[in-house]
Amino acid sequence: MRLVSSKIFTMVGWIYQPILISLAVLLITLSDKVHGGKILVYPLDGSHWVNMKFIVEALHSNGHDITVVRASNSWYIKENSHLYTSITIPNTGGFDEDFFTELVLGKYLKIQREHGQSFYTQMKLQSLLTESFFKFHKNMAEVISRVLDDDQLIRSLQEAKFDVVLTDPSVAGGTMLARRLGLPLVHNVRWTVQGEAHMVLAPSPLSYVPFVASELTDKMTFPQRVSNVLTYFIGSYTLASQTEPNYKPVVLRHFGPDVDYDTFFQVADIWLMRTDFVFDFPRPTMPNIVYVSGFQCSPANPLPPDLERFVQSSGEHGIIMMTLGTLLATLPEEIADEIAAGFAMLPQKVIWRYTGPPPSTLGNNTLLVDWIPQNDLLGHPKTRVFVAHGGTNGVQEAIYHGVPLVGLPLLLDQPDNLSKLTARGAAKVVNILTMDRRVFREAIEAVLYEPSYRENMQRLSGLHRDQPIKPLDKAVFWIEFVMRHKGAAHLRTESYKMSWVVYYSVDVIGTLLACVLLVVLVSLAVVRWVCRKVFCKRKVKKE
Amino acid sequence: MRLVSSKIFTMVGWIYQPILISLAVLLITLSDKVHGGKILVYPLDGSHWVNMKFIVEALHSNGHDITVVRASNSWYIKENSHLYTSITIPNTGGFDEDFFTELVLGKYLKIQREHGQSFYTQMKLQSLLTESFFKFHKNMAEVISRVLDDDQLIRSLQEAKFDVVLTDPSVAGGTMLARRLGLPLVHNVRWTVQGEAHMVLAPSPLSYVPFVASELTDKMTFPQRVSNVLTYFIGSYTLASQTEPNYKPVVLRHFGPDVDYDTFFQVADIWLMRTDFVFDFPRPTMPNIVYVSGFQCSPANPLPPDLERFVQSSGEHGIIMMTLGTLLATLPEEIADEIAAGFAMLPQKVIWRYTGPPPSTLGNNTLLVDWIPQNDLLGHPKTRVFVAHGGTNGVQEAIYHGVPLVGLPLLLDQPDNLSKLTARGAAKVVNILTMDRRVFREAIEAVLYEPSYRENMQRLSGLHRDQPIKPLDKAVFWIEFVMRHKGAAHLRTESYKMSWVVYYSVDVIGTLLACVLLVVLVSLAVVRWVCRKVFCKRKVKKE
Repeated sequence: MRLVSSKIFTMVGWIYQPILISLAVLLITLSDKVHGGKILVYPLDGSHWVNMKFIVEALHSNGHDITVVRASNSWYIKENSHLYTSITIPNTGGFDEDFFTELVLGKYLKIQREHGQSFYTQMKLQSLLTESFFKFHKNMAEVISRVLDDDQLIRSLQEAKFDVVLTDPSVAGGTMLARRLGLPLVHNVRWTVQGEAHMVLAPSPLSYVPFVASELTDKMTFPQRVSNVLTYFIGSYTLASQTEPNYKPVVLRHFGPDVDYDTFFQVADIWLMRTDFVFDFPRPTMPNIVYVSGFQCSPANPLPPDLERFVQSSGEHGIIMMTLGTLLATLPEEIADEIAAGFAMLPQKVIWRYTGPPPSTLGNNTLLVDWIPQNDLLGHPKTRVFVAHGGTNGVQEAIYHGVPLVGLPLLLDQPDNLSKLTARGAAKVVNILTMDRRVFREAIEAVLYEPSYRENMQRLSGLHRDQPIKPLDKAVFWIEFVMRHKGAAHLRTESYKMSWVVYYSVDVIGTLLACVLLVVLVSLAVVRWVCRKVFCKRKVKKE
Repeated sequence: MRLVSSKIFTMVGWIYQPILISLAVLLITLSDKVHGGKILVYPLDGSHWVNMKFIVEALHSNGHDITVVRASNSWYIKENSHLYTSITIPNTGGFDEDFFTELVLGKYLKIQREHGQSFYTQMKLQSLLTESFFKFHKNMAEVISRVLDDDQLIRSLQEAKFDVVLTDPSVAGGTMLARRLGLPLVHNVRWTVQGEAHMVLAPSPLSYVPFVASELTDKMTFPQRVSNVLTYFIGSYTLASQTEPNYKPVVLRHFGPDVDYDTFFQVADIWLMRTDFVFDFPRPTMPNIVYVSGFQCSPANPLPPDLERFVQSSGEHGIIMMTLGTLLATLPEEIADEIAAGFAMLPQKVIWRYTGPPPSTLGNNTLLVDWIPQNDLLGHPKTRVFVAHGGTNGVQEAIYHGVPLVGLPLLLDQPDNLSKLTARGAAKVVNILTMDRRVFREAIEAVLYEPSYRENMQRLSGLHRDQPIKPLDKAVFWIEFVMRHKGAAHLRTESYKMSWVVYYSVDVIGTLLACVLLVVLVSLAVVRWVCRKVFCKRKVKKE
């Protein structure tokens, strides 16, 4: 009896096992969401956190348990939030509002105003940036060093059994922590510590891939291609000089001498790339790059009533909005005066995020505000032009809402971001230091009244929005994919493990050339030997 | 009064225009589908059409009007269909069942059986394939030439105002027709006339990107890398020798001498790539490549009742299914005998698509059928092993349903397809010519009873199925995207327009090296001049 029943069980097992396995696979496959996963976030502060927070919110609403590592003097990342538990690392200095206001206003603009637009100025600015970012990365390296030194913290992180580390690799801390904890890694990225993310990961033929700081397009003349190659080498060297001396010693101390610092970034399972090919020029990419440009964008919500009233008061002329991003809410007086005077000459209403003292030339049509509901204002049907510094977030929101730009780029990737839109005829760039009220007004009028600017931006907007799934959903899907499958190794190429000699097949080509040379030499030797024999014979005969 | 009303109209226009524009953009964006578009399909016959038909069906059910160009002696593409209107081009010879049966059975297998597995055999087989495919492409070039010569046909195609050309660029006709009609182009592709599609379009470092026919993986030893480089050059040359002499004269005649034949393929707006990185090894890719591997797969439908009864009769042992694809429904007697004898020794039931005379060793457990509902059988919970030749369609269906393979590869990409699954531990390959019944049975038993094969295939299946949208939906979305935006130029890189000198920056590097050399030479000249001056002076002094 027992035998029979066991046989029946075995049979039932045989019959149903495949069905059950298939069902399980199907269920796992069909469920897009991994509920109750644990995610460790190692963000970068400032505007990068503004951006990262959108993903944190989406992950939170999908039921995940999120832990965020922050510095005690964090600028934007709150210690207490309903979205996450925070781990606070003691810190002084580093990346805060003072650092940037001092850098941009106190030094960057000052140098340019004192010395004008010369090669000397450019060198001085470059050395200022290098020095500032060297200090910044030094501080970031101290923070991650404090994390790795804290055995108790590391133990508790290990015991928490996170599923994935989500980081912004503009600082190296998150990648080190992922390696220390042996966890899958997802980058929310446009830059890594080593450079523009594509350049770090994917083949980048410099003949049509412009280096990010170069302000070039994918169609380059010969001199431009020369400039692109030089910019690439100089830019990469400069970046390395700011970061490597700071992070490499930490890696050496915590991971030993046999570990390659570069691979800390390249092992990432998924790269959520904060760009797309509506904004960037088309270029080679990689299987584990997911384009999530504009994931922070959403249809506009209604404005606060008083702002809405102000906007409506613009009538047929519509409004102009201006902000120079999280970094710069104030400007030197004479610059602010020119801008205000330029605005005052226009029939439009203007909303300007500006926290400095009101400029003397301020017109009746201009409203100064401390804070701007940027996405909602960009999505407002009355918004005609966006005056911006060209930070990635703002530019992408402008594309999403189809609002053309007047750009006042300051530093970092801002000139380059704006040059991309200028190349598409969707923005006009003005030099904030050399312009006067007339130049500024004319730039705005061009974008207001030449229909091509708006048409081009609307075309970009149409292309950007025409995606099978929304960028934020894509970001969440791929983070959860990594959680479900404990990584995404099948999407990561072998390239990061290779030396450049192997990667470029230099050894193979060398060997093949050597073989060809050998064959040629041996053939020559044989021919010579035969000739000599024949020649000698003849000689002997003659004699 | 008129003035006032016109002003009101202007105001209303000013106010509502942006709203209307935004609404229109939103509507275009939200509507995933372009109803009533017109699509011109230029397919390749045989198994490629089996595959293309899935996309044609999906496009048809989205309300598009489809026209298919077919040859009068088409093997698979029916003249009359509710899915499409056909345009029939008179043809004899070319790609039909006889061509392939003769090639594979009459020649390819015969040579191997007569001459054994030697270098001589390999050379003979290679020359057989080259000769056969030369003839095939010659015929395909004649067909497109007949199309382009027919002014009335071209005029009617121009007047039909198609939105897009969809083609399989394994033959060059579709690309030429798209160029002639000036239409956007979408490839449904794994191979183009110039080689594996990735190799044609994307950077492919041969250090970790195995050439498709090489049976190598992305982890190569030094000798393997040497072999990969050699295979790449020989393979590319061989392919070009089969195709270019046939198509280039057609291009010259119809498009003039200034047109670059290579660009006919590279200008495609979207490449629907019939692979993914569950099947292929990860490698660089391009913005306009969309991975649609397995779009032909769907959950299994119930089997016909008699087949279901046969399958159920297998009890706990389950079934084995075998098919060698569309090309080969019969085999030489002695090979068929060994296969049948191998099957007869197993407790499983076997369903074998075989149209030849029943082998003398056929067991009671084996059912020979003329046609196999492949997808439904692969998806049946009782299916344990799939014995297959390794064609792309079958391999991808096996991955979709998670059924491990015993591979009997014959020619073309089949050995390579199977080697990819072997590298993942999801298939076992047997040489159909050298195996006997014992070897064949042991291979099947290994895949049946070693759990790793099934587990690995189920893992691949899980990864493959875990996508945010289904591959077929993705394919349709991107075809419709191209129709909506009249192309996808923003996703196509500039690389295809470049000579290799420019692409690899050879001119830039040369110039920079020349500059360095010049500086060195001038410096040396100056040093020498100074030295001489000093030296001369001393000499003079001494004298």
